[in-house]
Amino acid sequence: METNAIQQVNNSATQLISPEDFLNHWQGHRKLTRKVIEAFPEDKLFDYSVGGMRSFGVMAIEIMDMAHHGIDGIITGKWNTLLDHSSGNIPAQPKAEILKQWDQITEQINEYWPQISPERFQQVELAFGAYENKNIGTLLYFLDNEIHHRAQAYVYLRTLGIEPPAFWDRF
Amino acid sequence: METNAIQQVNNSATQLISPEDFLNHWQGHRKLTRKVIEAFPEDKLFDYSVGGMRSFGVMAIEIMDMAHHGIDGIITGKWNTLLDHSSGNIPAQPKAEILKQWDQITEQINEYWPQISPERFQQVELAFGAYENKNIGTLLYFLDNEIHHRAQAYVYLRTLGIEPPAFWDRF
Repeated sequence: METNAIQQVNNSATQLISPEDFLNHWQGHRKLTRKVIEAFPEDKLFDYSVGGMRSFGVMAIEIMDMAHHGIDGIITGKWNTLLDHSSGNIPAQPKAEILKQWDQITEQINEYWPQISPERFQQVELAFGAYENKNIGTLLYFLDNEIHHRAQAYVYLRTLGIEPPAFWDRF
Repeated sequence: METNAIQQVNNSATQLISPEDFLNHWQGHRKLTRKVIEAFPEDKLFDYSVGGMRSFGVMAIEIMDMAHHGIDGIITGKWNTLLDHSSGNIPAQPKAEILKQWDQITEQINEYWPQISPERFQQVELAFGAYENKNIGTLLYFLDNEIHHRAQAYVYLRTLGIEPPAFWDRF
């Protein structure tokens, strides 16, 4: 069987989730998270929380940093330590600046994604020098973490009397 | 190329996420959600919310019903209408009863999963008679919806002074 034939089989409809499907799914979620950032009042982004949790601004920066440095790590195999976002001590940034960085990362992901070889997804690495996982597992973690913290921003918005974007609105 | 060879290629490491990987990922999330239900005080399960949202008990039943009737639909191609959980008017149930049903559905998913042919995942159907999507897209929606509402329960728990299970604790 020649390489082309192998590739054809692997790209066929029998792949559960193709790399392209995964990219679209991730970027769809990122579009929704961007809408949630947009919906958040500027003066509350880094200065509001519920239940003693972190501000949504800090969570949004965590989501961005994971995507940004994460895609770099998966491409190069060189992982930098991630900034510690857990304390919540992250300097506030204007919403417009966050959205600008968000859009740059969106383009970066789209540009880098086709460069990831199928084998890279399955390699086990120490993501950010700390979390051992297959790279696809690390990518799933980025997605899960984004959905998780964005959902907490839905609660924050509701307590502020603001209706969040619909959960299925990923366009 | 014989069928066996095709299957071998498709089950090889070049699959981004194999059906077995997806099952393990889903069940890992379900284990964490089960822990969040366990951590929730019995008297608050259907009688507490933040920001005017639904109780976590209602959300947990929605997550269960989606998984239960969803896996049925994906196996049989026959989709029943889903109970409307959006209003929050769902009768309260004891926590022990919810956990019992949860465990039954866990076994049901494990039993049914290997019966799903690769082609079924890619078929477009009207899930619950209402949501047109590829079956794999519908499955991803179940997972996303579970992460989303469970994350809201994390906020509820924090406001009750209870530390939720760690997000990575899916064992």
